[in-house]
Amino acid sequence: MKHYTSIEDIEDINSWIAEAKALKGSPLKHVELGKNKTIGLLFFNSSLRTRLSTQKAALNLGMNPIVMNVSGDAWGIEFGDGTVMNGNKAEHIKEAAAVVSQYCDIIAVRAFPTLTDKAKDESEQVMNAFKKYASVPIVNMESATGHPLQGLTDALTIAEHAKVDRPKVVLSWAPHIKALPHAVANSFIQAMQKMDVEFVIANPEGYDLNREITKETPVYHNQEEAFKDADFVYTKNWSSYEDYGKVNNTDPSWMITKDKIGKAKFMHCLPVRRNVVVEDAVLDTDSALVIEQANNRTYAAQLVLKKILENL
Amino acid sequence: MKHYTSIEDIEDINSWIAEAKALKGSPLKHVELGKNKTIGLLFFNSSLRTRLSTQKAALNLGMNPIVMNVSGDAWGIEFGDGTVMNGNKAEHIKEAAAVVSQYCDIIAVRAFPTLTDKAKDESEQVMNAFKKYASVPIVNMESATGHPLQGLTDALTIAEHAKVDRPKVVLSWAPHIKALPHAVANSFIQAMQKMDVEFVIANPEGYDLNREITKETPVYHNQEEAFKDADFVYTKNWSSYEDYGKVNNTDPSWMITKDKIGKAKFMHCLPVRRNVVVEDAVLDTDSALVIEQANNRTYAAQLVLKKILENL
Amino acid sequence: MKHYTSIEDIEDINSWIAEAKALKGSPLKHVELGKNKTIGLLFFNSSLRTRLSTQKAALNLGMNPIVMNVSGDAWGIEFGDGTVMNGNKAEHIKEAAAVVSQYCDIIAVRAFPTLTDKAKDESEQVMNAFKKYASVPIVNMESATGHPLQGLTDALTIAEHAKVDRPKVVLSWAPHIKALPHAVANSFIQAMQKMDVEFVIANPEGYDLNREITKETPVYHNQEEAFKDADFVYTKNWSSYEDYGKVNNTDPSWMITKDKIGKAKFMHCLPVRRNVVVEDAVLDTDSALVIEQANNRTYAAQLVLKKILENL
Repeated sequence: MKHYTSIEDIEDINSWIAEAKALKGSPLKHVELGKNKTIGLLFFNSSLRTRLSTQKAALNLGMNPIVMNVSGDAWGIEFGDGTVMNGNKAEHIKEAAAVVSQYCDIIAVRAFPTLTDKAKDESEQVMNAFKKYASVPIVNMESATGHPLQGLTDALTIAEHAKVDRPKVVLSWAPHIKALPHAVANSFIQAMQKMDVEFVIANPEGYDLNREITKETPVYHNQEEAFKDADFVYTKNWSSYEDYGKVNNTDPSWMITKDKIGKAKFMHCLPVRRNVVVEDAVLDTDSALVIEQANNRTYAAQLVLKKILENL
Repeated sequence: MKHYTSIEDIEDINSWIAEAKALKGSPLKHVELGKNKTIGLLFFNSSLRTRLSTQKAALNLGMNPIVMNVSGDAWGIEFGDGTVMNGNKAEHIKEAAAVVSQYCDIIAVRAFPTLTDKAKDESEQVMNAFKKYASVPIVNMESATGHPLQGLTDALTIAEHAKVDRPKVVLSWAPHIKALPHAVANSFIQAMQKMDVEFVIANPEGYDLNREITKETPVYHNQEEAFKDADFVYTKNWSSYEDYGKVNNTDPSWMITKDKIGKAKFMHCLPVRRNVVVEDAVLDTDSALVIEQANNRTYAAQLVLKKILENL
Repeated sequence: MKHYTSIEDIEDINSWIAEAKALKGSPLKHVELGKNKTIGLLFFNSSLRTRLSTQKAALNLGMNPIVMNVSGDAWGIEFGDGTVMNGNKAEHIKEAAAVVSQYCDIIAVRAFPTLTDKAKDESEQVMNAFKKYASVPIVNMESATGHPLQGLTDALTIAEHAKVDRPKVVLSWAPHIKALPHAVANSFIQAMQKMDVEFVIANPEGYDLNREITKETPVYHNQEEAFKDADFVYTKNWSSYEDYGKVNNTDPSWMITKDKIGKAKFMHCLPVRRNVVVEDAVLDTDSALVIEQANNRTYAAQLVLKKILENL
């Protein structure tokens, strides 16, 4: 593996989960592996978990993390080919990516979608430009259409908490006041499709995700039906994919409640809006795995960095 | 000691001062103590001295510091209990504090007061929420009502520079154009009350601090009287406590001058507005201990982190 | 050498180039030299290359870098002498520089010019104040009138790529939509004047640089004439020096093209606006040394830090 920018970069999810569990058991075992190696964490957008867990993962491998908020710390970056750069962008990605490659052995990038230009978002302009113009491996810390560090984390968390051989996992949409990306949902779907689980999706009409990602996964427009006998309810809001980036539905009856999920474990990538996406009664009990998911972010990132370092 | 969020967390200030002096003499003696341990420095507000000195202290103990400007780097944080989060705050402190605890062995927090809502400020909402919801020790890098790393620093500085057994220490208000917090003054008072010094406070009428903190300490409304035979004049502006957060007085006659302090040493936590709070003639001579105070911030922080690390 | 704030601080550029080449060959040879030493990187302005390369250089020497965006992270800084600080600046450079010196063994500073106040810019107010009031060595990461880390980098790059004993080097102005500083041009000129090269400058009328810097270097107002038989074309926009800080000329005929430079190598400090300053056809071929220049930033910075550390 050179880059890690999609769940599709995982060859065998079960062996990756086993390796991640081993790292979690001995996080400092490979503290010499990344010695004198540098990882650049480039943020085009806000971040809490990803920012901290990826630094922690790098430190566990002995690496030196260098963190940059691209917009605030450096220059506006132009991505267009052949552009006459007489606007507000001072540096082209061709230079920026190649330049950062001179100082960093790995570059990790966070770049959210526009949610207004579907074609641009689906082209994964930023992530692909870094892959094309950087000379070092690229790690996706959430891009326009995927959040593969989160997806790997979630697979690990489900593997750790499954009490039956083939648990039932539901990905459920929930209401939110703002237009949110599809990235977390997409990567979770791709991860579940690789695992030995019974996996279904629940969302209102008009909120079906990209068919090229959901593929054969059953999609319910009735949340109650989807939740039947669920072992894990993974919740996430996303804006409409069909009516791209729009918030056409904030129906509170889709909020996750203790009554609805019963004995199922509740999962969410965080941050989560309490009593909008999910009621307090779910988050404040053992039903919620959200903090354990946050913890597992470290080991998912550490596994990815370890594999890249071993391949340098 | 688990947390360090108040001067009240110091059991025996004299032994702490002795230990801090020892650290100052051999700052790298315990460089193995914090190895592979991480401290998260979370800033809700600006910081120069605290930002740098706490990092330096952590590095002297071999720790890895991770610094975050919460507002700019991550998400708006909700502190209310049971809130329906459909406003501009994307993450609840219950999750945020628990999540950061997954990546950091110690969390240090700076969160200034509102200076408009006295009850909220006095509840120490942010610091107490971190103590409640984080699973790791919390260090106060200046909260609504206290700045205990500064208070410990000041105690150390006075102990180092005292030329008599029981020096006279005056805390004097001085004018300022903006509404400033009471935190530094409060922690300084609490530190002086624990030391063997003659301690008095000087401030204009209407500027008395919280009686629950000043307690039996004499309060003069006549600066000249208070300064008589002073060995140390610690200066700080604060907004009115009685008429909470208001700037009702900018009387320049309260500015500290060379004439006023005579042979006394001048102290201030910095940043200080020259020729508003204190005249150049004081700061530009040996009367001023302000840079030595800044230096001692490292060893106060290092002592606190060392005690917490030893107790992990 | 105590400080490094100008190309004039280089005693013998040829021996420095030789040392930088050696560091580039074995970047980790001196990884013990800076152990437990801290460098503070203070940015008053945006930075990508300087931010990352100086951190990388420090890490290669085993140092701990601490990075601060002064304006956003800390307080507005007053530089005037004797000022009554009742405006929007909360801290005086006298304190700020002395305070940072308590935590950092070296302080590196970036502070751009105003481009409106020539006298202030030429006084190098910020850099000189740090030199005056800090108690530790100061490194210039680009100031009002110079960028000596870049100038040293460029000297190294030319030395590495020269194919004749005394190559011809042209510094050419190129158009740009914004008012840019003279710092990079000035330091490049000073570096070339110290090297054994044939050096000329090309710029439109009204764009001559400071005569105290250009000295005897020939200045052409005809780009074609200047480029004749050039081995290296170093390109940079600058605003007018005579009509200080003004953009009186954006003549596109001064843009660098493949046709114009022929076999010459193209150099630029980056960031560069494509198809405004230089056409894609130059940057996208082997003619361009810009990425190698970016790489050499690490070794220029590392040499400077090494020399300072050895002298502490």
